[in-house]
Amino acid sequence: MPMKDFLFHNPTRVIFGRGKTRDVGELTSAHLGEKVLLVLGRQSAKKNGLHSLIVGKLAQSGVLAEELWGVAPNPSIESVREGARIVRDKGLTGVLAVGGGSVIDCAKAIAAAAWHDGDPWELFEKKIKPPNVLPIGCVLTLAATGSEANGNSVISNPATEQKLAWYHPEAYPAFSILDPELTFTLPPEQTAYGAVDILSHVYEQFFHNLEGTDIQDGMAITLMRSVIANAPVALANPDDYDARASLMWASTLALNGLIGAGAVGDWTCHMLEHELSAKHDLAHGAGLAVIFPSWMRLVAARKEKRFRLFLERVWDVSTQGVAPERLGQLTYDTVTRFYRDRLSAGVTMKDYGVDNPRVDDMVTCMLTYKTQETLGGLTRDEVVKIFQDAA
Amino acid sequence: MPMKDFLFHNPTRVIFGRGKTRDVGELTSAHLGEKVLLVLGRQSAKKNGLHSLIVGKLAQSGVLAEELWGVAPNPSIESVREGARIVRDKGLTGVLAVGGGSVIDCAKAIAAAAWHDGDPWELFEKKIKPPNVLPIGCVLTLAATGSEANGNSVISNPATEQKLAWYHPEAYPAFSILDPELTFTLPPEQTAYGAVDILSHVYEQFFHNLEGTDIQDGMAITLMRSVIANAPVALANPDDYDARASLMWASTLALNGLIGAGAVGDWTCHMLEHELSAKHDLAHGAGLAVIFPSWMRLVAARKEKRFRLFLERVWDVSTQGVAPERLGQLTYDTVTRFYRDRLSAGVTMKDYGVDNPRVDDMVTCMLTYKTQETLGGLTRDEVVKIFQDAA
Repeated sequence: MPMKDFLFHNPTRVIFGRGKTRDVGELTSAHLGEKVLLVLGRQSAKKNGLHSLIVGKLAQSGVLAEELWGVAPNPSIESVREGARIVRDKGLTGVLAVGGGSVIDCAKAIAAAAWHDGDPWELFEKKIKPPNVLPIGCVLTLAATGSEANGNSVISNPATEQKLAWYHPEAYPAFSILDPELTFTLPPEQTAYGAVDILSHVYEQFFHNLEGTDIQDGMAITLMRSVIANAPVALANPDDYDARASLMWASTLALNGLIGAGAVGDWTCHMLEHELSAKHDLAHGAGLAVIFPSWMRLVAARKEKRFRLFLERVWDVSTQGVAPERLGQLTYDTVTRFYRDRLSAGVTMKDYGVDNPRVDDMVTCMLTYKTQETLGGLTRDEVVKIFQDAA
Repeated sequence: MPMKDFLFHNPTRVIFGRGKTRDVGELTSAHLGEKVLLVLGRQSAKKNGLHSLIVGKLAQSGVLAEELWGVAPNPSIESVREGARIVRDKGLTGVLAVGGGSVIDCAKAIAAAAWHDGDPWELFEKKIKPPNVLPIGCVLTLAATGSEANGNSVISNPATEQKLAWYHPEAYPAFSILDPELTFTLPPEQTAYGAVDILSHVYEQFFHNLEGTDIQDGMAITLMRSVIANAPVALANPDDYDARASLMWASTLALNGLIGAGAVGDWTCHMLEHELSAKHDLAHGAGLAVIFPSWMRLVAARKEKRFRLFLERVWDVSTQGVAPERLGQLTYDTVTRFYRDRLSAGVTMKDYGVDNPRVDDMVTCMLTYKTQETLGGLTRDEVVKIFQDAA
């Protein structure tokens, strides 16, 4: 099958470079209006001065800001509810996210919830797309999810132990400020999980069975090679601008629709990971480092051509003379060695302290909204096997 | 120097795939309004039925269409004036281009001229950006210029023998329909010149002297390799969908801002080519096939690292043991051999019937608006040499 038909439309303004946060006041005033909700994570933006810089710039541009602090990894629907309440009570005109993908995802859900009369969780549970979404802006502090330039949001509901994804074509940020210097002070594990997350987004869009996708393949390979080259540099030298800049731009390009345009996304491993981190609180990138290698080992022989391309062109591993049934283990070894040795990232659930994974719960829960067809043809038993092998 | 700071913002909706022209009525009605100017080239859209298909779809969606036919390669300011007159007289709400880059460039100039009270040529001569531009849509029939997803327009003025470029951030098409099947019936030389044009756009953005641009480089190399692989296939089998689709998507990605984001464009050869085709009417792609190899031969030793990368990664030509001063000739031979042997494209002015190039006129005219600095540091004598070597 040739390149697929596609729609590519990505209206987000990316403002990329050193110190670009200084433009946040003007950008907010121009695109989000005069009264915004500032959405932030835990405390780092306060400690490193980013919060006060932004508040100052907003004030200079005459923008009033309410604040929602404390959005955590695997952002909770509770944060969304709280943000939506503030937006309604104060009649706010836009939402400005300052953080990584969790904060941005939460901001998108708040921006949509402002236009939805029911409980915000309905957006995710019933895939509701309100007619409008408040305009969203971002100051990105972590290269990982790509949420800075797409219309996706993933929110967790601790009460139901669900973690669900949602998309709205109006939820693309109006602008995203990408200043690689803001990532210099990240804890190493966040840099590492971010790199795994970027790679995993590319994996999801790379292992199709189409022909005639040399452009998509070349761009995907470029992004993967860049992350593989630059993430270890950023870990060794957190202030290396070139490495941080490449990681940040890769995070955006990995999930802004570009490499998926004309290809076919799989997203099975993301669904598995969502179950894993919904039931056992671990970072999304960590969950992907656990799930993906195990999935690759299972399916490589079925997608032989793509896995040979992957090993040869992304990892510089020759597959000459390697039998199809050995490709899975070779891929598993190649990828996990990089995660473990170069990123210091765990590759099993045990590595993250999950000693008794609730495999049955995860699979049962997932099969309430996914079918074998939407899991790339995997049977229930195969999904169980992926979880067990990743334990 | 590391990756440059950049703004990336490309709001064009790309609708890509077989038969997507069927959506033109709804798209036009949604984005251009109810009364549009249809801008077309010479006769091919009439002969192959595309015109009547589009007119039918517009009528079905309740869109009234006036028509401007006859926009030629190196589109003339006269066509712009005529189109702008119709738009004003009839109170039209948008401009729909059906054709290749010339038609689209003309449509953009008309859309801007509708908001400019003086003569349309002032837009180009004085780089005027009116406060608004009428919304623009495209049905692309030629993979070449990338005009389908950027804010650029290049218009010629036969009276003054000038060919000038203009950019407006509001002149990005609201939508562009990219149906590779529409290019099956192109004359071979248009396919060839289109391929040269795409390659040349990538060249302009590839030969910088920055470091840390592995993502931009990888994407640029991907696009060049795709064109080099697919253009000969499309020439041999005009109905090869995969080859046509790759060329079409490459044309868009080569000049939609993506590979230039963070890099530095040169555009010297485009300026030289504009002079060439303003003084001696030949196709833009043909002019680029003449100018670029000659420029490469002159500058390769000064940009040694980039030219080694270019030869090795794009053309699979080893440069081991090749002295810097020999890189230019090696590049010239590599590129011209491909143009001549695989694309059947001429590589000298003589090949296109230009026996007495007006080199002095071209250089003098160019230096009225370009300086040594904006020509990548070339002196007047060097510009003369490039033209003479390309004769």
